[in-house]
Amino acid sequence: MGDHDIETDLRERIARSAFHSWVGMELVAAEPGRVEIGLDAAEHHLNLQGTLHGGMIATLADTATGLAVRSMVPAGSRHVTVQLDVHYLSPGRAGHVTAVGTTVRVGATIAYAEADVTDERGRLLARATATVAVTADRG
Amino acid sequence: MGDHDIETDLRERIARSAFHSWVGMELVAAEPGRVEIGLDAAEHHLNLQGTLHGGMIATLADTATGLAVRSMVPAGSRHVTVQLDVHYLSPGRAGHVTAVGTTVRVGATIAYAEADVTDERGRLLARATATVAVTADRG
Amino acid sequence: MGDHDIETDLRERIARSAFHSWVGMELVAAEPGRVEIGLDAAEHHLNLQGTLHGGMIATLADTATGLAVRSMVPAGSRHVTVQLDVHYLSPGRAGHVTAVGTTVRVGATIAYAEADVTDERGRLLARATATVAVTADRG
Amino acid sequence: MGDHDIETDLRERIARSAFHSWVGMELVAAEPGRVEIGLDAAEHHLNLQGTLHGGMIATLADTATGLAVRSMVPAGSRHVTVQLDVHYLSPGRAGHVTAVGTTVRVGATIAYAEADVTDERGRLLARATATVAVTADRG
Repeated sequence: MGDHDIETDLRERIARSAFHSWVGMELVAAEPGRVEIGLDAAEHHLNLQGTLHGGMIATLADTATGLAVRSMVPAGSRHVTVQLDVHYLSPGRAGHVTAVGTTVRVGATIAYAEADVTDERGRLLARATATVAVTADRG
Repeated sequence: MGDHDIETDLRERIARSAFHSWVGMELVAAEPGRVEIGLDAAEHHLNLQGTLHGGMIATLADTATGLAVRSMVPAGSRHVTVQLDVHYLSPGRAGHVTAVGTTVRVGATIAYAEADVTDERGRLLARATATVAVTADRG
Repeated sequence: MGDHDIETDLRERIARSAFHSWVGMELVAAEPGRVEIGLDAAEHHLNLQGTLHGGMIATLADTATGLAVRSMVPAGSRHVTVQLDVHYLSPGRAGHVTAVGTTVRVGATIAYAEADVTDERGRLLARATATVAVTADRG
Repeated sequence: MGDHDIETDLRERIARSAFHSWVGMELVAAEPGRVEIGLDAAEHHLNLQGTLHGGMIATLADTATGLAVRSMVPAGSRHVTVQLDVHYLSPGRAGHVTAVGTTVRVGATIAYAEADVTDERGRLLARATATVAVTADRG
């Protein structure tokens, strides 16, 4: 698939997903090995200390790394995240948040990807790493 | 605080939280060093493959480990998760999901906690580990 | 293989290994899904603060988790650790140190195992988690 | 301390360390927030599959991240690694191996650093992340 097709494919996946609509995530950009996700963090995404909940940051990182791997594997294959490690570096606030997922290595059965989550001023809120299993579709 | 007070305190924290209501998490039980969180996983918690989204599992694990640490530190102190590592072991489905967070070590400034996320049949969906920074409140 | 054969097989592997002899690790016990490794930590295993070097703890954890997975897969297959996460909980000193690796889930291509590293008084020095890729031997 | 002093300080630390001599690690370069460690990987650093043992890679990553943090904190303070996550990306062989540790965030009590471990052809063998606790010396 070309870059345009990849972005179209991922955009359709997210549009079909009740989860992504409910959370409020949108696909900002996609090319092979790099996917950018956006979220307008609102009050209900914050914890009691008024900062972006760690689970939301993990959700963004999981989505960005998973789709980055998705953008690098054949259309018929499946990807399943087996491990996600998130390092929280600065507290996030309400406002626009971006997660950029990039693949570092995509092997035949295992992929490794990373994500940076930043706020609208470009401050790094979290850095995440993910191990993703890739399998040929059994369908 | 006694066990009853800890549970009451955490229950009030969650009740005040727009995030927890929005996600649908509830506190099931709490005692010093152990906190159980429940979620009735619905369609909007699932990814496109029909399984519980990794971000939701991370949210449950983050909440359970954070509150388990919370249950072990003085009332005036703050806890901030600095690192969360989630291992996804089996796909989750719609239905009741439980996360049990337990503290393994709570030091003066750093705590280490773990969480098991299981489905309603007791199947282990994920195991998570968390590093939590503890600081005296500056308020 | 029976338990005895597994222990014999792993013992021979370690005896053939220049690495394990050089480090000073020995196999203490093995059964399917559980492997215990011992090390007499000496001065040259310590860091400048006089505590067991984090790299040695990681080495013990990596070995214990890898061999625990090894004990659960067919003789002809290969196991490769793709990710190791170590949480350091207490400083170790010179003296006998034990690492017990246990498998939590062994799938067709991915396994998940954990290790506890303890000192001779049973104090928990570190807890580790590992993601291990399992493949049929191409030989 | 200036860059030269940092390198001198770290070089003396490593020279005093029986562990580093025994392993065969040497300090290649150091500046604030970036430390490069070298190792000539020999037969006794390899596992039975003939590849660089995961414990050695973790040792290099632990050392590089720890010293990178060390290069950024006041002389009288202590640094203790509380968590190390290593992603193994390609098998290493005998030959020169380099680990470069860099700090991403150094706070008052918690630091976050990363390390890349590469072989002599520049191939990325592993990427690691570390959480390091920083405390004022009690001495």
